[in-house]
Amino acid sequence: MRAEILSVGTELLLGQIANTNAQWISQRLAEIGVDVLHHEVVGDNLDRIADSFRLAMSRSDVVIATGGLGPTQDDITRDALAKVLGVPLVRHAEIEEQLRAKFVAYGGRMPDSNLRQADVPEGARYIVPDRGTAPGLVADIAGKRVFCVPGVPAEMREMMEGTVLPELAALAGPAVLVSRILRCTGIGESRVAELLADVFEGTENPTMAFLATSGETKIRLTAKAATRDRAEALLGPLETEVLERLGDVVFSTRDESLEEAVGRLLRAAGKTLACAESLTGGNVGARITSVAGSSDYFRGSAVAYAADAKRDVLGASEETLRGPGVVSRECALEMAAGARRLFRADIGLALTGAAGPEPHGGSAPGTVWIALDGDDRRHTRKLSIPGERDRVRRWAEQAALDLLRRYLEGKPLPESDRII
Amino acid sequence: MRAEILSVGTELLLGQIANTNAQWISQRLAEIGVDVLHHEVVGDNLDRIADSFRLAMSRSDVVIATGGLGPTQDDITRDALAKVLGVPLVRHAEIEEQLRAKFVAYGGRMPDSNLRQADVPEGARYIVPDRGTAPGLVADIAGKRVFCVPGVPAEMREMMEGTVLPELAALAGPAVLVSRILRCTGIGESRVAELLADVFEGTENPTMAFLATSGETKIRLTAKAATRDRAEALLGPLETEVLERLGDVVFSTRDESLEEAVGRLLRAAGKTLACAESLTGGNVGARITSVAGSSDYFRGSAVAYAADAKRDVLGASEETLRGPGVVSRECALEMAAGARRLFRADIGLALTGAAGPEPHGGSAPGTVWIALDGDDRRHTRKLSIPGERDRVRRWAEQAALDLLRRYLEGKPLPESDRII
Repeated sequence: MRAEILSVGTELLLGQIANTNAQWISQRLAEIGVDVLHHEVVGDNLDRIADSFRLAMSRSDVVIATGGLGPTQDDITRDALAKVLGVPLVRHAEIEEQLRAKFVAYGGRMPDSNLRQADVPEGARYIVPDRGTAPGLVADIAGKRVFCVPGVPAEMREMMEGTVLPELAALAGPAVLVSRILRCTGIGESRVAELLADVFEGTENPTMAFLATSGETKIRLTAKAATRDRAEALLGPLETEVLERLGDVVFSTRDESLEEAVGRLLRAAGKTLACAESLTGGNVGARITSVAGSSDYFRGSAVAYAADAKRDVLGASEETLRGPGVVSRECALEMAAGARRLFRADIGLALTGAAGPEPHGGSAPGTVWIALDGDDRRHTRKLSIPGERDRVRRWAEQAALDLLRRYLEGKPLPESDRII
Repeated sequence: MRAEILSVGTELLLGQIANTNAQWISQRLAEIGVDVLHHEVVGDNLDRIADSFRLAMSRSDVVIATGGLGPTQDDITRDALAKVLGVPLVRHAEIEEQLRAKFVAYGGRMPDSNLRQADVPEGARYIVPDRGTAPGLVADIAGKRVFCVPGVPAEMREMMEGTVLPELAALAGPAVLVSRILRCTGIGESRVAELLADVFEGTENPTMAFLATSGETKIRLTAKAATRDRAEALLGPLETEVLERLGDVVFSTRDESLEEAVGRLLRAAGKTLACAESLTGGNVGARITSVAGSSDYFRGSAVAYAADAKRDVLGASEETLRGPGVVSRECALEMAAGARRLFRADIGLALTGAAGPEPHGGSAPGTVWIALDGDDRRHTRKLSIPGERDRVRRWAEQAALDLLRRYLEGKPLPESDRII
């Protein structure tokens, strides 16, 4: 079954709000195996809304329209639907009663303008809202079904979950869509695509898609089948193949963030972590503590931005600071050991480097040393990260968290290199 | 001039991301007086993208397509454009050279798949990217102009601001557009709108728009005139009026982030800062050091997530930890003093609280104490921040940075309160 989401509202076209309704509805439809082939946004204009309805019905089996069901003059989705159906609007006494009852319950008098919400195109059904005052509308035209739901997100979600999605799931028949998201770091999107090129070419169900975000590539595998078990069975071999080709750059097969994966591994190992940060200014600790429950394994972080803070707070030696300097293997190791000692943690993780745009400690922008000091081994890695300050910091965080992830998983630890 | 935004990407139709690109572009087009009548989203399917191009060109003067310009097999916007134009793709040696140079600069080898990015539909122009590797495309068809820009938001914005918007503004007529962005925190968007309601109603040029992001409200004033001087002259009185009404909740009149504003003020005062963080996990330091040159005034931060780290690292007293506890005025003050002493800074800024979802230190989720320890005065503030963990953390950061901003500006310091 093919669906299209038609969002009505000039505020979307002016960029005053993002179309998060379309995103939410798309997610829900994917879950029940309904394909969404188009989103469309149109302003509060009768003819253009009617045209958009016609267009959507010409290319999809189901149209879900959001917005334009309110009580004000610019709420004209129901008028546009009536126009497309070629029928008049009929005022429904039972909706009027429900509206009046709602206003009484809220302790107010209903403005006359709200009566518009009791109008339904002749022959169409309506959906009584649990939240808000806007009834939804359902109409069948030439074998296509149109749902109109409110634009207020909470009202839209209530009506979708209570009425529209169950109705569509029943119409869609027994098909289940199951997705699995693999996340990797330390590898570029184009290299991922290259490694998986022929797998990608050969697959229609399950499908495979890539999404690159800063410092990461996501691979989404999606299978469609009559049952969840059969969808899972389709996914299994593809996931195995992808994992074999990509190897241990994959840090999660369940759409975890790197900080969530690291948290899960620390918790499983019963180990605690402390950080020593410099160029990242505290971001590594901030990311680790963005996960609820992180106080079970995260002890703290010393952000030693100034060189003498590295000495005073973390115990970096005068010899190191005067010799190889603040951006060095020695300094990173002393910082990691210092954080471990200061916060009495099992593992110390340190980053020091030049975020740019200026060189720092005699090192070019993008030069980063990371060090891990565990209870059984120590490891350092040097990176040369090209790009802007925010990119250097982000990739340094990724490399540090990924070093920790590999250490906790017992995977080979990467040596010094250049990353892209 | 009528424009349409065509967003290409199956990830949008699956609801994996919201279409924030369409929102951003819509805002920018509104500012230069270009009407946006439709947004359209289509998946990574050659025929459907081509159909969407044709549809968009049939109803708009200008089409801006985002996404599908990457190096992978599912990036086929350029193929679809060539199909619509009825021309072949031609590989451009100069783009290929630029691509290779970029990969050399980043220290890598260019995967062959990236060569696709050197393909341009015959007769079309291309836009060299400053960020990323995806060139933009520009084609004229039957009096309509099509722009294709990357889907990665930072790359899209760079190309829109550098090339597409100036070109469209010139097409839209001899007008200069000047914007000024005022940013405020510690006040809700609806309160800002209320305070400025009649100013907002009365103004067509300059225009005024609000944008609420987490913990902040931006007010964008935009004037259109024949020259920059005349646009500035139009903006002046409106800006003065807005500033008078909003008072000192405005922390910047030049679109600075709160951390940039604080950095500018610290630099001007010749003072250094150290932080002590708990529930924010390092985010305050991370934000301050996201600004280039912050090593001139930022000394460091102690993220004391565990209670005994607050004692061992920051010198919080046993008496405080056993008495009022880790979420208390006393603890915040001791942490601020500890950070100031530990990092030898002029000002210590501390945050402690319960981020949630669980209570912490006997305090309900959302309870936050912030403290500032300056060389002349100390100040504390208690907040009760409703919402999820990430919201609590964000608002706590905002309140702490804004307290510091007001202190440095010599403005009245806010007392304990509830923020929403």
